[in-house]
Amino acid sequence: MKQKIIAIDAMGGDHGPVVTVPAAKIALDQIPDIQLILVGDSALLIQVLAMNGLEGNTRISVQHASEVVGMDEAPAHALKKKKDSSMRVAINLVKEEKVQACVSAGNTGALMATSKFVLKTIKGISRPAICGMLPAITGQTYMLDLGANIECTPQNLLEFAVMGSVLAQSVEGIDNPSVGLLNIGSEEMKGSDSIKEASQLIAATNINYRGFVEGDDIYKGTVNVVVADGFVGNVSLKTGEGLASLVKHVLQTEFKRNLFTKLLALISLPVLNAVKKTLDPGQYNGASLLGLNGIVVKSHGGADTNSFVNAIKIASIEIENDVPQRISHEVESYLAKMVEVGL
Amino acid sequence: MKQKIIAIDAMGGDHGPVVTVPAAKIALDQIPDIQLILVGDSALLIQVLAMNGLEGNTRISVQHASEVVGMDEAPAHALKKKKDSSMRVAINLVKEEKVQACVSAGNTGALMATSKFVLKTIKGISRPAICGMLPAITGQTYMLDLGANIECTPQNLLEFAVMGSVLAQSVEGIDNPSVGLLNIGSEEMKGSDSIKEASQLIAATNINYRGFVEGDDIYKGTVNVVVADGFVGNVSLKTGEGLASLVKHVLQTEFKRNLFTKLLALISLPVLNAVKKTLDPGQYNGASLLGLNGIVVKSHGGADTNSFVNAIKIASIEIENDVPQRISHEVESYLAKMVEVGL
Repeated sequence: MKQKIIAIDAMGGDHGPVVTVPAAKIALDQIPDIQLILVGDSALLIQVLAMNGLEGNTRISVQHASEVVGMDEAPAHALKKKKDSSMRVAINLVKEEKVQACVSAGNTGALMATSKFVLKTIKGISRPAICGMLPAITGQTYMLDLGANIECTPQNLLEFAVMGSVLAQSVEGIDNPSVGLLNIGSEEMKGSDSIKEASQLIAATNINYRGFVEGDDIYKGTVNVVVADGFVGNVSLKTGEGLASLVKHVLQTEFKRNLFTKLLALISLPVLNAVKKTLDPGQYNGASLLGLNGIVVKSHGGADTNSFVNAIKIASIEIENDVPQRISHEVESYLAKMVEVGL
Repeated sequence: MKQKIIAIDAMGGDHGPVVTVPAAKIALDQIPDIQLILVGDSALLIQVLAMNGLEGNTRISVQHASEVVGMDEAPAHALKKKKDSSMRVAINLVKEEKVQACVSAGNTGALMATSKFVLKTIKGISRPAICGMLPAITGQTYMLDLGANIECTPQNLLEFAVMGSVLAQSVEGIDNPSVGLLNIGSEEMKGSDSIKEASQLIAATNINYRGFVEGDDIYKGTVNVVVADGFVGNVSLKTGEGLASLVKHVLQTEFKRNLFTKLLALISLPVLNAVKKTLDPGQYNGASLLGLNGIVVKSHGGADTNSFVNAIKIASIEIENDVPQRISHEVESYLAKMVEVGL
């Protein structure tokens, strides 16, 4: 049986051990074959473990780290000055093969910079990317890059397509995930030269490529995987969050209007909860840093316990499916094909 | 009193005269000081006018145009080959000062290309932009560019900030509209060099500039005007549309679940209608092509009658507020200031 040890950056995120330790407890219950290492201030973590009734549990242990990366700290500063941060030590454990994955709710930029520095990128991948899941009418959509790479070459976008396809296959078990390239019109004539070139590159692979998609296709779920540069990906992720806030605001305002609507809200709860659940970003918590020699999962900084559990689950699924190895294999095969067709 | 004659590209959009003529009728009722010229196939239009009881109405007339630009036609083809299209003739009327504005639900690319060619850009504006209104928690947000300019220089973004600010002032009557530049993080360090340079340029003007905003700020309404390049602007516009579809889908599915929820839907109608109204793009129909020597308003291609009326109202407000003249004035003053500070 495959070993599944996951390092948790226990100090990361807005809430630190208050969220990460209870989440670890639930994850141990829900995923029977994992072991966890909590990384951070050991004196504190041992206390919190005890408070959660986890003392003596042989599936969870503590690894000391004396520093914490601040949520607003410059990534370069974290990388150079915080060599004993909980984030860095957790990533080191992946590098040293003492764990098979790590999960952090810490500073995204620092997590990406440190992971790249410590783990290096997979051969054939020039830039790692952040891939997340978004709700869609048809289920969910994988989207990358969500903000690691502001400007991207066509080659970068091609690599994102390969990596996103592998992740959707692994996590969802979709046989041949459909992939779309985000553009501002599905007609061939639209979009920048760089997007057009990326489209040609992706079309030349074995990927189930469906051509250009537009912003509305993300939440409609027209394709399984949407590829974009990190600027556009991040803006559209955040735009969706903003619209979700607007919908919640309108529902709340309308249902609070008078006694009748307040009563309505009460009896409409099952419906409202379904809407809330669909729009709840926690449900989709756990973005994958893809393209690294190792599994790193990023939780939302403000994630609550259940959302953080979800990020641990994603890490577990990636271990089970050897995601980095599969990406490496896919990239090699498309590189061979590129040489073959003379690109 | 200011003359307010508006040319309507009566053949444009997915529905043509079926929508534009009834919309014209409502607009004449709701806006007492406008006159309208319907541009398109005169034989057809005279019939539709009669069907709508508008024959003999001295506030509406017909101008013949023998061609129609296709919704998927290449803008360059429309510009070169369709010199007697309803769209082109409507824009010509603006140029010839026979009308003070034109409204079209036709092909966006062709409308922008033709408007630029016929009307030319305002002195000091290098590229016109499309500015639309989006729903926000605080009311509405003006956003530009929504897709006319895929790649933008810092100077272009500065011009968009000036133009968006003038439009929000004119349409909403906001004294000193707040303006934000769309980026992927509000920290100074994030974003491309081009975005950072644009930020410095805008900060040097008299605009009420609030610095960087993120995707979620659009629908939250953090600022009155959000500036972005046309690629990012279009993606985030469409992303919002996609998420709105998802919300509608979930609400419909949940309310159709059983007899009880169907009953709930019935009594929850006022609340549901409020949500629908907030998310209804028609309410915000009428994007302004800014930066041209003349007023051109673009309606959504699929707009229904009431939505098209809204686009006519926007045109009327722009005439009242001399939007092109005000943009010209603002641009001149910031250009003078740039010279002054040696930029």
